[in-house]
Order: sequence, then C-alpha cells, then structure tokens
Amino acid sequence: MTILDGKKVSNDIKNEIKAEVDAMKANGEKVPHLAAVIVGDDGASLTYVNSKVKSCERVGFESTMIRLPHTTSELELLKKIKELNNNDDIDGFIIQLPLPPQIDTQKVLMAVDPSKDVDGFHPENFGRMALDMSTFIPATPFGILELLERYDVDTKGKHTVVIGRSHIVGRPMSILMSRKGWPGNSTVTLTHSSTKNIAQITTQADIIISALGVPDFVKAEMVRDDAVIIDVGITRVPDENAKRGYVLKGDVDFENVSKKASFITPVPGGVGPMTIAMLLKNTLLAREQRRV
Amino acid sequence: MTILDGKKVSNDIKNEIKAEVDAMKANGEKVPHLAAVIVGDDGASLTYVNSKVKSCERVGFESTMIRLPHTTSELELLKKIKELNNNDDIDGFIIQLPLPPQIDTQKVLMAVDPSKDVDGFHPENFGRMALDMSTFIPATPFGILELLERYDVDTKGKHTVVIGRSHIVGRPMSILMSRKGWPGNSTVTLTHSSTKNIAQITTQADIIISALGVPDFVKAEMVRDDAVIIDVGITRVPDENAKRGYVLKGDVDFENVSKKASFITPVPGGVGPMTIAMLLKNTLLAREQRRV
Repeated sequence: MTILDGKKVSNDIKNEIKAEVDAMKANGEKVPHLAAVIVGDDGASLTYVNSKVKSCERVGFESTMIRLPHTTSELELLKKIKELNNNDDIDGFIIQLPLPPQIDTQKVLMAVDPSKDVDGFHPENFGRMALDMSTFIPATPFGILELLERYDVDTKGKHTVVIGRSHIVGRPMSILMSRKGWPGNSTVTLTHSSTKNIAQITTQADIIISALGVPDFVKAEMVRDDAVIIDVGITRVPDENAKRGYVLKGDVDFENVSKKASFITPVPGGVGPMTIAMLLKNTLLAREQRRV
Repeated sequence: MTILDGKKVSNDIKNEIKAEVDAMKANGEKVPHLAAVIVGDDGASLTYVNSKVKSCERVGFESTMIRLPHTTSELELLKKIKELNNNDDIDGFIIQLPLPPQIDTQKVLMAVDPSKDVDGFHPENFGRMALDMSTFIPATPFGILELLERYDVDTKGKHTVVIGRSHIVGRPMSILMSRKGWPGNSTVTLTHSSTKNIAQITTQADIIISALGVPDFVKAEMVRDDAVIIDVGITRVPDENAKRGYVLKGDVDFENVSKKASFITPVPGGVGPMTIAMLLKNTLLAREQRRV
C-alpha cells in the first residue's frame, strides 16, 4: 500500500513553480500576480485566503488581497470584478466563497473574465474542460489528477467510481477521469444521493474518488482488494481530546480501508494540500497565456 | 414493450411550437428566426440544412439559409458570424458541420454568441448545462430527455449506461442523466473505446443509451430484462435489395433486444426525428429570452 502524500507533492509543485518564477525574474519578466477578493469577516474564509496569499509569497508571486465589508452590494462587487478584469497587472483572481446573502453568487462568478478565472468556476471554462479544450481545471480535481500522475497510477480502462456530484469536485472529476489521455480514459460511474446499492457499485471499482463529506462513509467491505482510494471529504468531528476540540475526518474509514488499498490519500495531508498548489499552477498558466 | 416513437413525438412538438408561433403572430409579435450557415456543397449537409429550413416553414418560423462557397476563408466565415451575432432580427443560428479544412471548427463555434447558439455547442452553454444552469441543450440529448419525459420513463436512482463519449451525444447525455431532477437523477456509467468488459456493465443497466455508430453492437445477451433502450446510432449499411442501395442501422440489434426491453427506440424513427424538433424548440427559447 502506498500513501498518496499530498503534503509532499504539493511542496514539490511549489518548489517547481518557485524555480519558474525565479527564472522569470532573472529574465526581467513580470511575475504572476494573483488577487483574492473576500467579502465579510467569516473566519474560515479569512484563513483560506490568508494561506493562499502566503503561498503566493512562498513561490514569488505578487498577490493582492481585497477585503470588502459584509454589507457590500452586488453592484459594488461587480464593479470591483470589472476593475480586476481590466487591470492588466492582475493575471488571475478568485472570489472567496461563500458570499453574503444580498449577492447572487452565480452572477458574480459569471462576471469574472474566463481568461483570469483561475478557480475554473466560469461555465465557459467548465465547458472547455468537458469538450477537451485547454482551460483552467478547478483546483481540487486538478490536484487529484496531479497526484495520480506523480504516483504513476494506471487509469486507462479502469473502472472509476466517483461519489458525489458537486460542481467543484464530483462532477468535474467524473468528466476528467473519462476524458481521453492520462490520467483519464477510465470507465466512470458517477454516484450521488439518489444512487441505490452504492456498495454494489463501489466493490466493482478499481478507483474510488469520494467527495461526499460524510465521515467514514467508505468502509472496508465496500472496497475491492488493491483499489485506489482518493478521499476528498474533510469534516470537523468534535473530539474533546483534540487540542482544537475537533479532528478532521475524511469520507473513508482509513484504518480499515488502507489495509486493502493499493494507493490511498490520507486526511489530512492528501487531497487538501494539493488545492492551493494547483491554484498557483493555474495562476502561472494564466500569466504564461497573457504573455503570448 | 413500448416503442418510443420519435416520429410521432417530434410531430407533436412541432404542432405545439406552431400553436405558440400562431399565438405570437396573433399578438402582432415577431416570430422566431433561425439562420443556417453552410459552407461548400456537401450533399448530406445540404440535405440536413434543407430539412431544417423546411421544418422552420412548417412551424411558422422565419428562416435564412446562407450558402458560402467551399473556398470561404476562416476570416470571411468569422465576419459572417459577427454579422449574425449583431443582427437583431436573427434569434438563433447554426453553422452546419463539417467545415472545409482551411477553417478551424473550434474557433468558429467559439465565435457564435452563446445567446444565439441554438445548437448548444459553445463551451459556455456546455458548461452551463454541466453546472445546472439554464441553457441550450444540444438537440440530440435534448430529444432523448424529451422522449423519456413524454413516455413517463422513471429515471431516478436507475443505473444508466451511456456508450460513447462524443461531444454531441455521449458526454452531454452522461451529464444530463446524472443531474438532479427528471429526467435525470440516474447513477450514470459512461463507457467508451477504452472500456473493458462492456457487456458486464451493460447487463447491470436499467437504461442503455448507445451512441457509438457500430451496427448491432448491443446484443440481447448484453441487456437485462425490462431495460430501457435508446439507440442513437445511425449507420448506412449497403444492401442491394434496398431502393437507395443501403439501409439505416442503429447500434442495437432491434429484433432480439426489443423482446427483452420495456421501452426501445427504433432506427429510423426514434431519436433521429427528435433532433430537428429540439432545434426548433431551442430557437423558440432563444426568441423568448430575447423578448425579455
């Protein structure tokens, strides 16, 4: 059994990006510039955005954090997005979610220029992905592809079962794993809340990608020997023995499933750390495309 | 066993559209206007476009057919598309494929204004579909949904197996059948040229949608009792006894599979006739959206 070590791989990726940025600097070129917009004071959102900004510093990107009050109107946010779209110095930007209730999230995400949409949330970019065109792949699915690639996991002709059909993980993952090329070319089954007899399906899977958010949902008896297990779930479970009062749990009963798996991601330290690395990679890509 | 009669249903839809157009006329409103661009003299393409134009007349739409010589440059075609995008009288338009080799098809399809893209081929519309937003669904998948709906076929929690991952049928069908709502909410497996043991997968299917283009690929032993069978394949097979020298064959061995199926589409007369009806429906939708 091999652990798919997202912490290590994401560090490798950041080092590779830093080397590219150093080369850009040495050539006197503009370095990638990521902006992040956050509306309101949600603690978790601030933590995420801060760690994105810190990662930018780590690889030598420029970064700009734009904090707007929680009373910001939709019109004001759309105006800010227009500014970022038109600001030639910004290569890519993200709008941290969730947004306050007075703002229509869909309308906001549609306003981002697809060429700067490094989160890959704009429908045009999503459609490009489904139609096998070059695009920004959303960070979490992109991170999973990268893990499979770096550990040389065979996916062609394998049966991949995806659990959960969210817009940011399950749906794109099901598309990416069935596209031509590698990692991909799998026979993919997408399961969700209306699926019956899920264990009957997962026991046929060579690869299971679970993005459900239900701790310990995937148990050993649902998994075939030598399956590849990707656990995207990350849920805070109260635990009075833990320093912070909770522990992070994935969708997979790691202790028992790991005994059968050929490859498995831990939680934490698996898919999670890959996300920011892939956001940086998309920003680098955005810079390269704007240079042309 | 019930035949899913695409000829009948597509006629019903055309009659319904005609009634709506008659009401528009009675109100003194502008009727929907579809334009079709065809480059070159390919016989099959001309036949398709002519039958689209004829269907427009049948339901009371305005239609414009734009024939360009096979020597048309990419730039000239893009200029024509820009004209159609800006022409307020045109509600929707299609570019008949294939295009001659000097023209980049992808670039051309990207140039169509998504709000007039009644074929649903623009990545923005494709992404909107995958993200559960309102959009133009490509005609063939849209027609299959309509057939399932009009025959009240239960899809929720059923296992749907899609054969083939083309951009115009297999891929969108796999997405649509797994979306929330009805028809949809199926557990969907997308199979393709790299899939192993396909019969093992199809025998588990409650619903099979085959869009492969290989005559008689789906045989009785690959199908479970009472399965719903949607046959999108349509291949010309030479036959010296036939008037035109060929017969049209679907992907499904109809004679034997129909004995086991609960619902099945014939070829011809199943999915095929639905396509133009749904193009008309998208054009009506485009008009309604432009009126707002």
